[in-house]
Amino acid sequence: MAKVVFRPSGKTIECEVGDNLLEVARRADVFIEAPCNGSKSCGKCKVKLLTGEVSQEVSSHLTDEDKANGYILACCTTIIGDIEVLTNSSLDVAMRGMKVEGGDKAKDKALFDKAVEIAENHNIKLENNIKKTCITLDEPTLDDNISDVDRLERHISMNFGKQMTYDIEVLKVIPKAFRKNNFEITITYREFDDRLEIIDVEPGNTESELYGLAIDIGTTSVVVCLVNMITNEVVEKGASGNGQLQFGADVINRIVYAIKKNNIEKAKAAVVDDTLNMLINELVKASGVKRNNIVSVVASGNTTMSTLFLGIFPDYLRLEPFIPPFFKSPKLNAKEVGLDINPSAGVYLSPNVASYVGGDITSGVLASGIWANEENVLFIDLGTNGEIVFGNQDFMMSCACSAGPAFEGGGISCGMRASAGAIDSVDIDPETLVPELNTIDGEPAIGICGSGIIDLICEMLKKKVIDRRGKIHRDLNNERIRFDENDIGEYVLAFAKDHDHLDDDLFITEVDIDNFIRTKGAIYSGAATLVESLGMDFDCVDKVYIAGGIGNHLNIENSVFIGLLPDIDRDKFQYIGNSSLIGSYLTLLSDEAKAKLEEIGEIMTYVELSVYPTYMDEFISCCFLPHTNIDAFPSVKAILEG
Amino acid sequence: MAKVVFRPSGKTIECEVGDNLLEVARRADVFIEAPCNGSKSCGKCKVKLLTGEVSQEVSSHLTDEDKANGYILACCTTIIGDIEVLTNSSLDVAMRGMKVEGGDKAKDKALFDKAVEIAENHNIKLENNIKKTCITLDEPTLDDNISDVDRLERHISMNFGKQMTYDIEVLKVIPKAFRKNNFEITITYREFDDRLEIIDVEPGNTESELYGLAIDIGTTSVVVCLVNMITNEVVEKGASGNGQLQFGADVINRIVYAIKKNNIEKAKAAVVDDTLNMLINELVKASGVKRNNIVSVVASGNTTMSTLFLGIFPDYLRLEPFIPPFFKSPKLNAKEVGLDINPSAGVYLSPNVASYVGGDITSGVLASGIWANEENVLFIDLGTNGEIVFGNQDFMMSCACSAGPAFEGGGISCGMRASAGAIDSVDIDPETLVPELNTIDGEPAIGICGSGIIDLICEMLKKKVIDRRGKIHRDLNNERIRFDENDIGEYVLAFAKDHDHLDDDLFITEVDIDNFIRTKGAIYSGAATLVESLGMDFDCVDKVYIAGGIGNHLNIENSVFIGLLPDIDRDKFQYIGNSSLIGSYLTLLSDEAKAKLEEIGEIMTYVELSVYPTYMDEFISCCFLPHTNIDAFPSVKAILEG
Repeated sequence: MAKVVFRPSGKTIECEVGDNLLEVARRADVFIEAPCNGSKSCGKCKVKLLTGEVSQEVSSHLTDEDKANGYILACCTTIIGDIEVLTNSSLDVAMRGMKVEGGDKAKDKALFDKAVEIAENHNIKLENNIKKTCITLDEPTLDDNISDVDRLERHISMNFGKQMTYDIEVLKVIPKAFRKNNFEITITYREFDDRLEIIDVEPGNTESELYGLAIDIGTTSVVVCLVNMITNEVVEKGASGNGQLQFGADVINRIVYAIKKNNIEKAKAAVVDDTLNMLINELVKASGVKRNNIVSVVASGNTTMSTLFLGIFPDYLRLEPFIPPFFKSPKLNAKEVGLDINPSAGVYLSPNVASYVGGDITSGVLASGIWANEENVLFIDLGTNGEIVFGNQDFMMSCACSAGPAFEGGGISCGMRASAGAIDSVDIDPETLVPELNTIDGEPAIGICGSGIIDLICEMLKKKVIDRRGKIHRDLNNERIRFDENDIGEYVLAFAKDHDHLDDDLFITEVDIDNFIRTKGAIYSGAATLVESLGMDFDCVDKVYIAGGIGNHLNIENSVFIGLLPDIDRDKFQYIGNSSLIGSYLTLLSDEAKAKLEEIGEIMTYVELSVYPTYMDEFISCCFLPHTNIDAFPSVKAILEG
Repeated sequence: MAKVVFRPSGKTIECEVGDNLLEVARRADVFIEAPCNGSKSCGKCKVKLLTGEVSQEVSSHLTDEDKANGYILACCTTIIGDIEVLTNSSLDVAMRGMKVEGGDKAKDKALFDKAVEIAENHNIKLENNIKKTCITLDEPTLDDNISDVDRLERHISMNFGKQMTYDIEVLKVIPKAFRKNNFEITITYREFDDRLEIIDVEPGNTESELYGLAIDIGTTSVVVCLVNMITNEVVEKGASGNGQLQFGADVINRIVYAIKKNNIEKAKAAVVDDTLNMLINELVKASGVKRNNIVSVVASGNTTMSTLFLGIFPDYLRLEPFIPPFFKSPKLNAKEVGLDINPSAGVYLSPNVASYVGGDITSGVLASGIWANEENVLFIDLGTNGEIVFGNQDFMMSCACSAGPAFEGGGISCGMRASAGAIDSVDIDPETLVPELNTIDGEPAIGICGSGIIDLICEMLKKKVIDRRGKIHRDLNNERIRFDENDIGEYVLAFAKDHDHLDDDLFITEVDIDNFIRTKGAIYSGAATLVESLGMDFDCVDKVYIAGGIGNHLNIENSVFIGLLPDIDRDKFQYIGNSSLIGSYLTLLSDEAKAKLEEIGEIMTYVELSVYPTYMDEFISCCFLPHTNIDAFPSVKAILEG
């Protein structure tokens, strides 16, 4: 046996000699980022050995300097005795970090308002069947001694002309609720044509306390809006990294983790308990709203996230012929899902379309209003998985490409989520090659998020730091350009020596750039293939909606320059934010939106790119800046050759 | 802090100096019988102090001999240091003891068969809507890539012309079940007019494996039948004491316990986890049936048992105007109730009629066939609570009297449940006063059950050991008759010195007899009041059905002799066994029986004896053997005076 102490938390666990350090950290519930899920390919699970000895496999992900400073990779480390390790780098915290902000102050309020406007302009009213009504029951006597439930049923039958249904959780609160305020109670219910489904019974008049949650379960980030269901206002909004990040950066790694013995429940707990319930806790604290007054939930996530959220075996999602367990989920309540709100709250998952086009996309399409458009819209969700929809009010086709987590900071040396301290836009001085960095909330830079990486690579290409293959020019003599022992080049954004808050330099390597080029290539080639599959080309596209959590500073010009987006009229592009979240919000508040969402799920078709004949060739052509065929990017060609 | 070790289990718990020993035992999950729930009135929580010192309140329930032998009362004991105590007397084991027997061999099979016959003679078929069907789905391909759920829905729509509903537990098993046997699966479902409600999906053909549970949740005893829902056979039958016995013998003590802080969940766990799930475990082991193939449950219990079974606050049951939380329970499944069988199994509770007439009575009335009778039937359930129904096919009236637990061995020095080793019939030699004892299963006598106590008191009266007040004649000179320091008399059934298996003598005291007289008086006076409330008397009664778990040897003649039953034609009496259990069995197997059961619940009226003007006088008159008005018992009068 050996003892492992994890710093800074001080968590301690006994384990066997011979155990793997990453596995031990997971057993101890210590968060270590591991985008490749311990397959030794990403080098992200770097921790510092403070005391003791370990046995290590050699890894190219550790530099000589890392080794000199005591860094080890958890996945490559075998425990041979008692040790103490330091796990939390500032980047880990940034990936996981939780943030709550008032809904009014939220920067994206305009995007929510816009989506509501589109919906209302197309006859989708923000109305739903969840209601609260304060009623006073007759007090029981020896002569009127029917049961509590029958008393409520009698009132509802007489006053609503309807039957009622209820569950065991409602039954549990009834006896005390009836008697706390002399049989004056407030019932929370869903009203149907023939019945009331009772969700809660509270003493006294609580008619004004009616809340719901609109949720986006991203592979990398999770966002929860606490919504006042009477005023439709977003009361608080909270975001954090998905607790499953420790099990891999992308859906494939998550699936591989989850199908191992007993891991499904752990994968579920990582998102439900460690992420959603933590966020709910923060939202409840910040708002003063009672948990039990949160009575409805709409969550949108990709098919893997939806599957793991419910604790369902996900393996067949990734095995041909790629079959999801469900498109539409069954009727669910908070208790069976494990959300720490009113146990009888309904939980609705946006419908999936295929293994790799999920509820986040149907929800995003709802929010974007493609379904109401006469023109052809290309919808691109830049997430860990890149999903693309092409369509209008008459048809919708979708496809998915494994973009990888680069847009959300994954697979990039200094990448991070779009949260405070993330570099979200970059300019490079053509002479000195010194970068001008903008960060989210103006906080000291601790990493770089998706929009920053786009800018950075564009600027490096424009300022001739890299060539069109993404390789750093060898003839530059600048302190920011350096090469390691394997001749892999890197460009430094910020030197630790100049910034007290940095332990290490912030930099981007040729390996990072290569990762990113494959990511942007996957998106472009997916979009091109989808449009082409209909016998069209990008000239037929009237609008391009860009969705995703890559940050608010997505620079369209730069995105075209690197070949992420097609070189068409810039006015056609529109950034629509986290459309998955906004779709959840619409669905939470509007039964008509929910019906529209289900219709979208049913009419959307899916193209499986992995078996599409020309996709692979197109992808390879895209692994270049902006593209091997520069003529497809005339505006870029003009600048590069001009 | 102090350490308490409980023998023979060896369970050890740390507690505070000053803690009460009974409370500590409960925290440690050590079973100590405490019919009065620690109110220091019953003297049943006797344990033996093996090592260490305690502080004790004086109690009249400990004899000098008890004290000399190291016995203490847990409820009266304060912990002052480390101790070791012995808790399990053979009687405790007998009260709790679990027994499983094959359904075929069950002694009461004839009673089940009789109830089925009555039902079938009145157009109640043993048919229900729970079915299993083996189907083979089309295997998915890249072209036919709908989700697993949609694949099943498509099949059901095409082959049954119906929609399907399902829950998250079914969703969880689907992906693997589909693929284990190449998409050949067996679905378990409830079939409705417009839909199939899927309960389970299993790989391969398991059509022959379909089971349910018929349950009687008694205040003292719990019985579970594992029923083959295809053949209707009782596969195994298991019984045990109710785990809540440690919280009091009667429903009032249970309620008083449960309403204290955090105790509701403990009261629920005592019956669900510690009793029902333990019994289910034994039934599953004995039968080899898979838990997941147990897909339906019908449970009948009194209103307090039903309330605590669901973990609902029970206090208003006992407070005027005596309001139950529910008559009919909501739709429930095994997972939310906590039963360790198929999580989606439906759980149905027989409907309650009032706070003190519950589902055990509606179920018993169903089994008895009163609803099909033209003649007037008096139905008497001899349980911890004595419930009485009077009626026929046109009307039914009910009432309840707190009989106390004497019929099930509670409140009697050597009382025990009707299980192996219980004395269930007694004869006393008129000369020697030596008793001839019959025991259940012919095992060595360890206590006396309800039918034995009836016989014993009758014999003591007949053989002039006691007078009509239940007092032992002071002039008898017999080694079996003795008086303690307070001049309380007792009669010895068996001397420990003659029987190696006994630690103590088996005896009955004047206090026991007094308890029993009040018990039998409550029943008789309740029945008399109920009949009288309709302007009738016992001559109008055409049949008397006696139900309850007092044992199979209920001697009607003796029961009349002591004034438990009215002195009418003996041919009118019929013992119908555990009718609550038999009604559960009928309801499990027959949807028509379930409809009839609900009709019974709706039409049965309730008379609240506690506010009925003449009841108290009648009860006091009954606290005599057989009654103060001996003329009401002509056959007894003839013998006593003859």
